[in-house]
Amino acid sequence: MQKYGGSSVADAAGVKRVAQRIVNTKKAGHQVVVVVSAMGDTTDELIDLANEVSPLPPARELDMLLTAGERISMAVLAMAIQNLGHEARSFTGSQAGVITDAEHGKAKIIDVTPGRIEAAIGEDAIAIVAGFQGVSQTTKDITTLGRGGSDTTAVALAVALKADVCEIYSDVDGIFTADPRIEPRARKVPRISYEETLEMAAQGAKILHLRCVEYARRYDMPIHVRSSFSEKEGTWVVKAADVAGVVSEEKEAHMEAAIITGVAHDRSQAKITVVGVPDKPGEAAAIFRAVADAQINIDMIVQNISEAKTGLTDISFTLPQGEGQTAMTALDRVRERIGFESLQYDDSVGKVSIVGAGMSSAPGISARFFEALSEAGVNIEMISTSEIRVSVVVAEAQIEAAVNAAHAAFELGSDEIEAVVYGGTGR
Amino acid sequence: MQKYGGSSVADAAGVKRVAQRIVNTKKAGHQVVVVVSAMGDTTDELIDLANEVSPLPPARELDMLLTAGERISMAVLAMAIQNLGHEARSFTGSQAGVITDAEHGKAKIIDVTPGRIEAAIGEDAIAIVAGFQGVSQTTKDITTLGRGGSDTTAVALAVALKADVCEIYSDVDGIFTADPRIEPRARKVPRISYEETLEMAAQGAKILHLRCVEYARRYDMPIHVRSSFSEKEGTWVVKAADVAGVVSEEKEAHMEAAIITGVAHDRSQAKITVVGVPDKPGEAAAIFRAVADAQINIDMIVQNISEAKTGLTDISFTLPQGEGQTAMTALDRVRERIGFESLQYDDSVGKVSIVGAGMSSAPGISARFFEALSEAGVNIEMISTSEIRVSVVVAEAQIEAAVNAAHAAFELGSDEIEAVVYGGTGR
Repeated sequence: MQKYGGSSVADAAGVKRVAQRIVNTKKAGHQVVVVVSAMGDTTDELIDLANEVSPLPPARELDMLLTAGERISMAVLAMAIQNLGHEARSFTGSQAGVITDAEHGKAKIIDVTPGRIEAAIGEDAIAIVAGFQGVSQTTKDITTLGRGGSDTTAVALAVALKADVCEIYSDVDGIFTADPRIEPRARKVPRISYEETLEMAAQGAKILHLRCVEYARRYDMPIHVRSSFSEKEGTWVVKAADVAGVVSEEKEAHMEAAIITGVAHDRSQAKITVVGVPDKPGEAAAIFRAVADAQINIDMIVQNISEAKTGLTDISFTLPQGEGQTAMTALDRVRERIGFESLQYDDSVGKVSIVGAGMSSAPGISARFFEALSEAGVNIEMISTSEIRVSVVVAEAQIEAAVNAAHAAFELGSDEIEAVVYGGTGR
Repeated sequence: MQKYGGSSVADAAGVKRVAQRIVNTKKAGHQVVVVVSAMGDTTDELIDLANEVSPLPPARELDMLLTAGERISMAVLAMAIQNLGHEARSFTGSQAGVITDAEHGKAKIIDVTPGRIEAAIGEDAIAIVAGFQGVSQTTKDITTLGRGGSDTTAVALAVALKADVCEIYSDVDGIFTADPRIEPRARKVPRISYEETLEMAAQGAKILHLRCVEYARRYDMPIHVRSSFSEKEGTWVVKAADVAGVVSEEKEAHMEAAIITGVAHDRSQAKITVVGVPDKPGEAAAIFRAVADAQINIDMIVQNISEAKTGLTDISFTLPQGEGQTAMTALDRVRERIGFESLQYDDSVGKVSIVGAGMSSAPGISARFFEALSEAGVNIEMISTSEIRVSVVVAEAQIEAAVNAAHAAFELGSDEIEAVVYGGTGR
């Protein structure tokens, strides 16, 4: 199973290059099923077109429209492969048996019945499947899976077809200890556990999407994240036990490797502060109920210590910038009922996280992280932690300094700069 | 039932305009089903993309690719209608129940099972259906219907849904007595029979495609050809009896109307002459067998009178220019076996035809046509006739003069010039 992102098939030349890779894999004796995203900016162009005719395009029709993107890329890729002398057949999500619920724009896969794919590979053909799309079990309408949908399609099909591995190709060489655009000494991680990858993805690393990693973890499907522009090994995302085995062998050479795997950052956050909340039971609950009712996912929460004088407190939380306006409107509507004073909105914040499975058994990790930030002059606004992660919210202008400081503090860097290209369509 | 061609939905503004028309029809109390072509040049762009990755794109994948075009237009049109406050749902050919054979690129409709369309209109929604496409009954693969496919989809659905009329919208006001670009006095024909329309289409008039008219004729589905840019009545294509009834009323005012309906011309023809063919039984058959085996459709045939001296004759025939190379190659291959001397290829020819149901009962029509051509200095290279048509092949440079002469000779012109726009995607 191979999956190619939009940047890998951005134009005819890219399609031909990917076709050659696929044929090489086939020639090496493998059965190949390929999931492909829409070419380059196709999806954005289709969204622009939708917005030209409708300020709020209906979800069913938007799905119908957007799935044209993968239809184009998969057909063109199948043509390019056949032009190299190998049989190839393209299949829509529906034809490939990707059965979803009816939630247009963010459908969930509820079953995969890849009978036509099995028939194609049984006849020695290469199957090309449209990522990102499926068909609703109840309405029979075409659905899209939302962000990360193509990666999820690839993993789900890999599981259903009992593939050995799901290779996810983009224009990046793998998963790095930090974003190489802001940390030139970032090093490619050879192996990483599903859990660490989930934390990296949740904290803003853009290579793999949460849903796809969750799916792979549930069914223990190894993911190989690699670049379609080079032949280099990428990063293997596997179960924790498999990482530990390899890492313990490597430990003597590189002691710190096990503790922190990487530094993730996320510029897409915003912070809302609810000022002057009466400090009595149920007030915080009422605030977060209002936000939850507006379908907003909040991330970190900080409640200041109440001032004894006034009996008032401030509550801050972070959320995706795109949901900021909705949250502010929802909160403003309950202001009188809850009785808080005012709302503050700040989207010039960012989140920096260190992630590592070794963290839970190594004391002092948070302290070393915070010291490094302090020495670099970075002010910590909020903190949250999990078993294998420590995240801080900082001013957006200080993200880069925070990443660099953390990367150095945990000795994640390589001695030489590894060449990488960044991009991707986010689909 | 309404069908909108690619020129009517060339951009977002066009889509909005068409959406408003559809909503107006709905508001007038009609149930509306709409068949739509791909937007503007989308199909050509997709074909270019295919050619960039493959010199001979496989037909199954080309169909998969091209159907993305209608998927885009139908979804965007449904959005635009919903934005006007009316429920609209888009359906692919497959979802609309357009069942075809498995001949990719030129599939034939073998059944229409529009259950989902009926359900949509039953729920008072406007159904938008992708033209030009269907699904193979045997392979379940996506197929396209080839040229004229969207018009044929519209008529087939209109028949299956027992629609009152199939309105076919383009950027032309209707069917004209001649192409207004070369005959400024061309007049819109208010009514025309299926048979005359078939002849006009076969002889190069570009408004309706043969297949669609054949389908409408078989099931007696009235077609109203009109412009999406104006509110004017267009041309009604109906059964001959219905034309005759109306025309006989009009006869006193416009005596010639019944005899000739229009002048068609076709620049896409080429002429092949097989020089020096031994004049003995079976030679002509062998030549046309070779051409037929290469899947070439030939149109007119002329065999010169054999020269007694040499016992050799020349055979000329016309065919579409696009098939010229194939035919020449096929004939060259049998030259020695048949023993002809040489081949001549001429693509600077054109065909001009007069069409009219009244012709069969009116003597002297051919004579008057040929006299008019002669007076205009047009040299006739070949002639063919049917019950309701006389066609001549002339030099390409003389097409315009021939059309003008015929138009004048049969007094087809109107006194004032009717404004029309020409274009269309040929799909």
